[in-house]
Order: sequence, then C-alpha cells, then structure tokens
Amino acid sequence: MSRIAVVGLGSIGGSIALGARARGFDPDTAVRDRARRRGLDVADRLTGALEDAELVVLAAPTAAIPALLAEAAALAPHAVLTDAASLKRPVAEAADRLPPAVRCVGGHPMAGGRAPGIDGADPGIFRGRPWAIVPTARSDEEALGLVERLALSLGARPLRLDADRHDRAMTWVSHLPLAASVALVLAAAHGAGTDLPALAGPGIRDATRLASTPEALARELALADPEALAAAADAVVRELRGVADALRRGDAAALDEFLRAGRDARAPLDT
Amino acid sequence: MSRIAVVGLGSIGGSIALGARARGFDPDTAVRDRARRRGLDVADRLTGALEDAELVVLAAPTAAIPALLAEAAALAPHAVLTDAASLKRPVAEAADRLPPAVRCVGGHPMAGGRAPGIDGADPGIFRGRPWAIVPTARSDEEALGLVERLALSLGARPLRLDADRHDRAMTWVSHLPLAASVALVLAAAHGAGTDLPALAGPGIRDATRLASTPEALARELALADPEALAAAADAVVRELRGVADALRRGDAAALDEFLRAGRDARAPLDT
Repeated sequence: MSRIAVVGLGSIGGSIALGARARGFDPDTAVRDRARRRGLDVADRLTGALEDAELVVLAAPTAAIPALLAEAAALAPHAVLTDAASLKRPVAEAADRLPPAVRCVGGHPMAGGRAPGIDGADPGIFRGRPWAIVPTARSDEEALGLVERLALSLGARPLRLDADRHDRAMTWVSHLPLAASVALVLAAAHGAGTDLPALAGPGIRDATRLASTPEALARELALADPEALAAAADAVVRELRGVADALRRGDAAALDEFLRAGRDARAPLDT
Repeated sequence: MSRIAVVGLGSIGGSIALGARARGFDPDTAVRDRARRRGLDVADRLTGALEDAELVVLAAPTAAIPALLAEAAALAPHAVLTDAASLKRPVAEAADRLPPAVRCVGGHPMAGGRAPGIDGADPGIFRGRPWAIVPTARSDEEALGLVERLALSLGARPLRLDADRHDRAMTWVSHLPLAASVALVLAAAHGAGTDLPALAGPGIRDATRLASTPEALARELALADPEALAAAADAVVRELRGVADALRRGDAAALDEFLRAGRDARAPLDT
C-alpha cells in the first residue's frame, strides 16, 4: 500500500493506523504516548506525519474536518485526502473550497470500537463492515480507488454513494439507533430500578450499548439533522404504539405479524 | 457436582449440559443426534436421562414446564427439579401442585446464544451473567443451594428473588427490549430501504439483534404480560417524544441531558 498518514488517533483513527501500518499524529501528547505504546509510528507534529504521505486520513469529529482539510491540503498538496467522520455533506462542502489541484474523497467506515480512544483501537473492527466512499468535487478515479484499496486492505466493504444519500441513510442507520437506545435504557432504568443492573442479560446490553456512545460523538450524531431525526423518532413511536394497542386489545395475530416483520427486516443484518 | 440431567437441548439446555457435563434428553431425535455430535451424553428416553439424577434442569418454553415438572417428579421423586424458562410465576404455581415431598426451584439464566438450537450451544454464555434463583413452595435451603452451585459452576451470578419480582423486572429487562428492537428495525428498514443492509454497522446490528429472536420464544416473551409490556412501550414512547420535541425546538441543552441520562443509566451494564 501507499505511504499513509492518519491524523487523530482515537478508536477509529488508531484502528486504521494499526491496520494500515500508517504514520500517526494526534494533537494530544498523552494520546501520542499511548499510541506509541500500542506500537504505532507517531510523529510529534502534523508536518512530520504528512511528509511524503500519498494518502492522508483525517479521523476527527465532523466539525473539525474542514479546518483539517485546509491544513492538510497546504502541507501535503499532492496527497489524496480522506476522512472518517460520521457526516459527509459538510466534508463535500469543505472539499469545494480546497485548491483545485488537491484531491479529496469523503469516507465513513461503519465500525466502532468496544472502548473509546486509542486504548479501544483494534484493526479487526473493519472486517466485513461497510466503508462509505463519497466522491466530492475534488475526487478523481485514482483518488477514489486509493481510498477503496485502503478499505479493502482492512477487510471492509467499500460502497460508493453520494453525500446526500449517505447522510440521509445515517439518520436511520446511526442517529436513530442511538436515540432509541437511550430512550430504551431510560425507560428500563426507571421501570426496573436496581433490578436492571442485577438482571440484565446480553439482550438488553446489546440493545442499549449505543447509549454509552461518548458525549462528543453522541452530540454530533444527535444534532446532525435534527428535523430528520425527529421524524425518524416519530416512526419508532408509531411502531411502539401499534404494538401497545395490539397488546391491549389481545390481538395475538397483530403481535405475531409485528414480530415476523421484525425478524424479516433484521435478517439481512444477521451476518 | 451432583449427577445432573438436562431436559431440552436447545441453545440454553445444550449450553448447560455442555458446561455441567450433564446427561441430556430432547424429544426430537434429530436434536439428540446433533447433541451427541457436540459430545454430549444423551439418553434416548426421558426415563434414561433422569435415572439417578440429583438435579434435573428443564430447559423448555414456559408453557411446557408444568407438564414436564409433573413428569419429572413422577420419574425422579428424589431429585431437585429446576428450570430455565423465562417466566417464573407459572413455574411457582406448577410447583404448588407437585407432591409435597418433591423439591422444586425456579431458575432463569440471563444468557442467550448467538445462534438458536443445539448448534448455538456454548457453555461460556453464562460467565458473569445473572441467574435468577426463584424459591417456590417446594424449595428448601438444600435445593436452593444445589441450583446456586450449578449456576456458580457455569460462571454465572446466582440472584435469589421471588417470582413476582422476577416477572415484573422481565417486562423491562427482556420483553421491552425485544419490542423496542423490533420497532427500531421496522422503522429503519422502512426509512432507509436497501441502504439499511448496505450501510449497517455494529451499532444498529447490536441495537436490533433481539428482533432476530426465534418465533416461539419471541411470542412467549411478548405475550408474557401484555398489559405490563404495553405500559413499558408507552414509557419508551414518552422518551422518544421528548427527544423529538427537543430536536424540533432546537433545545440542545435538553438533548444533552437526554444523552447524559442515557449514559448514566447504561453505565452499570457496561461490564
């Protein structure tokens, strides 16, 4: 593979850097030290990390990407720039403002560590997972192919789609599951009290795991598209009211149909 | 450990039998054959499995437990009988009808296989998980201790509680997460269409895993206490309406509080 630099050594950036044997950089000295203890080649300055890089991966929150893109474009004008942030419209818009010769491809690996930060980094988290590849006005085939090869080299399944389609899908695939997970754990904690931690098995643990999303990321996801997320929450409300009505009128057939439709909808995610 | 018999070699019964080196029985010939290929000592008749058993574990759906208890009490009147079904009031009531000398303890390991049936059996699924131990009118200290030692030997955390408290908690800890998981996957499948399977990462996969609960078990859980589950679904609806309202009025502080409360409520389940 090419010479790769990863900027931002959290759970995702650290995992990419470990898997791609990339040079890494993080603005936080303590994170750089911990990343070195994980065996990474870490530069002490952004300039050092980007030197000679052919592919630069910006693994930072969406809000930080526009400034990082501009900085990386200035330091490494010949490199292909990509990112791993959760929203792609802001990245596509920031790419529009880059110098015409700079190449930039939006990216979003659909993976997450079990623990936050560099300590939760694990190059295996991408295996079999989608990796959204989002062309921008500064993308060409070579640049897109370079990012796709990075995804493939980590075992991910690259999927090309435009920024609008990506961000619309994320409302349902990412932001809504977070909100539903929080709503569920709040209701269960209120309803079961101390019996929740005492009796929780793997089912409710999995169903509510997203409620443990670290603060900054959770906020970014919840506020990505407030109107769209509110409408998505309404859709879950309608489903839950339907099942509550069926339960109250003793309609076992409607309940069976609800459960069957859920199994069918979940089946493609079983792998 | 004592001589243990496990009746019903599904995911839970098979896992107990593997971990406890118990003799097993299942009414289904094909299941018995598959269980033998997993290395289990399997009897071809219930009588053979229960012969000389000191502890009999009935790993069958709740609805099948009363008849199985009566049958096991007749065949092994000196054994301690327990079960692994998801509801404990029906088991406690069935225990009342057993001959006075028969000892019976309700049990519910809070664990689940990743795959259904004997093929998904794995003796490691109990490690660190709660195992509800529910006294009945036919329980004595020795019988309770025997079931607790079985749970401990499989790495589980036995927790004594009465049938009413157990079944009330299950509405929140088990039945509600199933309903919420189904509601979420139906909304997401409708909203995202083919982008759901294309882009689903580990977050929504975990959040909706319970929607894949096999038909018979899902029906048992959903219909365990319809009125209580309807009220629990209402509680999630209130949470989701609250967050939708906060999103629509752009109330970032309310959103932050919702996310923070969710992290706090989820924290005890992090292990």
